Amino acid sequence: MKLIVTRDYETMSRVALNHVQAHMYTGDNRRVNLSITAGKTPERLYQLFVEEYKGKPYFDQVHFYNFDEIPRAGEAVGVTMNDLNRMFFKPAEVPEVRIHPLDTRNWKDYDKKLMEDGGLDMILMGLGTDGHFCGNLSGTVEHFGMETRLVTKEACPLSYFEREGSPDHYVTFGPKTVMNARHLILIINGSHKAEITKKALFGPVTPEVPASVFQLHPNYTVIMDEAAAALLDG
Amino acid sequence: MKLIVTRDYETMSRVALNHVQAHMYTGDNRRVNLSITAGKTPERLYQLFVEEYKGKPYFDQVHFYNFDEIPRAGEAVGVTMNDLNRMFFKPAEVPEVRIHPLDTRNWKDYDKKLMEDGGLDMILMGLGTDGHFCGNLSGTVEHFGMETRLVTKEACPLSYFEREGSPDHYVTFGPKTVMNARHLILIINGSHKAEITKKALFGPVTPEVPASVFQLHPNYTVIMDEAAAALLDG
Amino acid sequence: MKLIVTRDYETMSRVALNHVQAHMYTGDNRRVNLSITAGKTPERLYQLFVEEYKGKPYFDQVHFYNFDEIPRAGEAVGVTMNDLNRMFFKPAEVPEVRIHPLDTRNWKDYDKKLMEDGGLDMILMGLGTDGHFCGNLSGTVEHFGMETRLVTKEACPLSYFEREGSPDHYVTFGPKTVMNARHLILIINGSHKAEITKKALFGPVTPEVPASVFQLHPNYTVIMDEAAAALLDG
Amino acid sequence: MKLIVTRDYETMSRVALNHVQAHMYTGDNRRVNLSITAGKTPERLYQLFVEEYKGKPYFDQVHFYNFDEIPRAGEAVGVTMNDLNRMFFKPAEVPEVRIHPLDTRNWKDYDKKLMEDGGLDMILMGLGTDGHFCGNLSGTVEHFGMETRLVTKEACPLSYFEREGSPDHYVTFGPKTVMNARHLILIINGSHKAEITKKALFGPVTPEVPASVFQLHPNYTVIMDEAAAALLDG
Repeated sequence: MKLIVTRDYETMSRVALNHVQAHMYTGDNRRVNLSITAGKTPERLYQLFVEEYKGKPYFDQVHFYNFDEIPRAGEAVGVTMNDLNRMFFKPAEVPEVRIHPLDTRNWKDYDKKLMEDGGLDMILMGLGTDGHFCGNLSGTVEHFGMETRLVTKEACPLSYFEREGSPDHYVTFGPKTVMNARHLILIINGSHKAEITKKALFGPVTPEVPASVFQLHPNYTVIMDEAAAALLDG
Repeated sequence: MKLIVTRDYETMSRVALNHVQAHMYTGDNRRVNLSITAGKTPERLYQLFVEEYKGKPYFDQVHFYNFDEIPRAGEAVGVTMNDLNRMFFKPAEVPEVRIHPLDTRNWKDYDKKLMEDGGLDMILMGLGTDGHFCGNLSGTVEHFGMETRLVTKEACPLSYFEREGSPDHYVTFGPKTVMNARHLILIINGSHKAEITKKALFGPVTPEVPASVFQLHPNYTVIMDEAAAALLDG
Repeated sequence: MKLIVTRDYETMSRVALNHVQAHMYTGDNRRVNLSITAGKTPERLYQLFVEEYKGKPYFDQVHFYNFDEIPRAGEAVGVTMNDLNRMFFKPAEVPEVRIHPLDTRNWKDYDKKLMEDGGLDMILMGLGTDGHFCGNLSGTVEHFGMETRLVTKEACPLSYFEREGSPDHYVTFGPKTVMNARHLILIINGSHKAEITKKALFGPVTPEVPASVFQLHPNYTVIMDEAAAALLDG
Repeated sequence: MKLIVTRDYETMSRVALNHVQAHMYTGDNRRVNLSITAGKTPERLYQLFVEEYKGKPYFDQVHFYNFDEIPRAGEAVGVTMNDLNRMFFKPAEVPEVRIHPLDTRNWKDYDKKLMEDGGLDMILMGLGTDGHFCGNLSGTVEHFGMETRLVTKEACPLSYFEREGSPDHYVTFGPKTVMNARHLILIINGSHKAEITKKALFGPVTPEVPASVFQLHPNYTVIMDEAAAALLDG
């Protein structure tokens, strides 16, 4: 585990983007497979990323995979891809041929597809206040060996799903799918994440704090601002 | 996870040795840190290894770390190092400066030492019939985040410790220590391991089957004979 | 540069095969692209390799590329592929889909193809008594930046081409094509190679000794028997 | 070879810094050995680098090696280290223990030292208008196999040495020392470099254009502004 504590959200975003790009900077032309996160944490990162990526042929070998998806009634594209399209794929003009959506139609074969595509080189994720990563909410993880799967409303404790008109299921990479990536990057900001940050990085490895499993990965980088790191020792 | 099923124990030993050596074959002179197992499973492997290693200056950059140790009353060297000395270090004439014993005196700082030495490049392990690896016996693993630790007789369910004159504690890498190595190799042989092999490779990831955690490692190779693989599908 | 001196041809063959296999032993299922040599030097290596490879599904991700070809009048398959078919591909039952012949029809686009396939992970080569590797005979290498190319009888000093009925051209990877592979392995045996071995490993880097360029590669392993190493110091 | 063409010097500096940092961003704590260039080209890069590096404990595993040195009469520190101290080491507060000066006193053993330290992970270099890199001026390179060496005034064609009071020798990594690093990064800016850029990247590999040898490296990244790239096709 490599810990990087930055001054603020802006610096965290910039340093994290540098890390993401580090995986895109091969000295040759080998294919690179990345999973990148939707949500609020990476918003600034994507603003900076668009500028770096758009119109740059030297990133042509990079492929993108979303790691979860929540269907939206009457819409062809779910919440996650809608977010990623808006924040990065569209403004950065990422060619469709290099975007590989995970959704409720193809999740059953997704781990196999990843393996056939050469495996994931890196996953960029955020951390939920309940310790979740991707759609692995605390309470939905029976054990860390779970692969890409469908989670139903009944199984999911998140209040999000209790609102009227909400979907009754979503899909997500499982902990095993994520751990099998060659590098993990976790970005965290804000004092409201300080407590769960401490648990996830230094607490027991338990499905109740899903991201605690990353402590076991041989190539794991955490980039957080000082507020998120406030409860860490030393 | 990469599965390799071989015809018999002899072939398993040879293929496993090839894998171990693969980590020693750098095209440059970079230091390589390996942990290798004692016990019965690697006996033939070490017979072959001695011949490959002895008097070969091109393995000078390779360092060895034992991953557990059981003290022996009145002896300076414990069970594990005694085994490794007998089977490999002595006959292969491995220089002491490249052997880094873990024992009951230095275990508290061992994870830190490993990190300072550059981390483990590879660990070769066997599989216990209870699913254990190193000294992580089923029943002694509270969670997978445990580091190198001392296990007392009271905590340890293994009948081995119930015999008269047996030690009342031992030390072992924890699951986290092992998972942080860059590559894992597990060797398994014999029909008496078939059931636990199936659980460890394809069952739930649970501390009750300690080696099940390896399913989460991005660089995990299992080499087994047909007898051990008998209950696997396909 | 990593030098490995073995007792004899048999040991050289076995150690070299271990190295070749080291590049096929990925802990995951990532594609691996290898170029392997025809000729006399690897004969024993291939005898051993057939046994290791045949019927082993765990090598399914490995692809093979020949690095030169000499057409034979009235034959669909040239000298090199004929050799490789006889010594390895046929007896080892390598599926055709994982063999990528270089020949006089496709050489112009071969460097591009290699790049699109992800680049070469490793090349196994022999050393000619004139210092050549692949078809880069001394006298045919204007400079080390040459890519895959066609060499005509006029340009080629090798007496082989002076015999009646011999082809008037052949194709070969250029020095640049080879140097762009991620790892180089050179195998050498016999006292008749001792002089050129010394020049290639420790002499000036010059097109007159084509293999001297390998001294510049960051991942270069030489495996030779004692006879070939006889003139090396220390 | 990976080509990255950026709009201007500012962007080149930023993208190049990202690449340099990519080699410092390990997910674990493995030692990283970098060689970085003095001179005018990296000035802006170092302004940005100071801010990234200063006070950041997460770069503690990174070590720095200068690749050439020109002694200054009556001064303990030569031209290169003086430049690096001024532009980066001092303002970034790099601890001395992680700076490994090459100078006229230690050059004879420097290639050996590099090997013992684990080898260079990356070298950042500029390109001279005569095609030189480090102190390998056109006219001083007999062949690409040269290691770290001392170049005397007589051997050196650079007018710099013809001025009164100038040193009569300097030391530099040789082409072989550089090529043995795991990754090469070349930064180039300005229209006055356009002609030599074309020669170095796509011309013959010849000691007359020393940087042309980098075409042979399996991990070679060139980052240049549009002005430097003006004469490249496509």
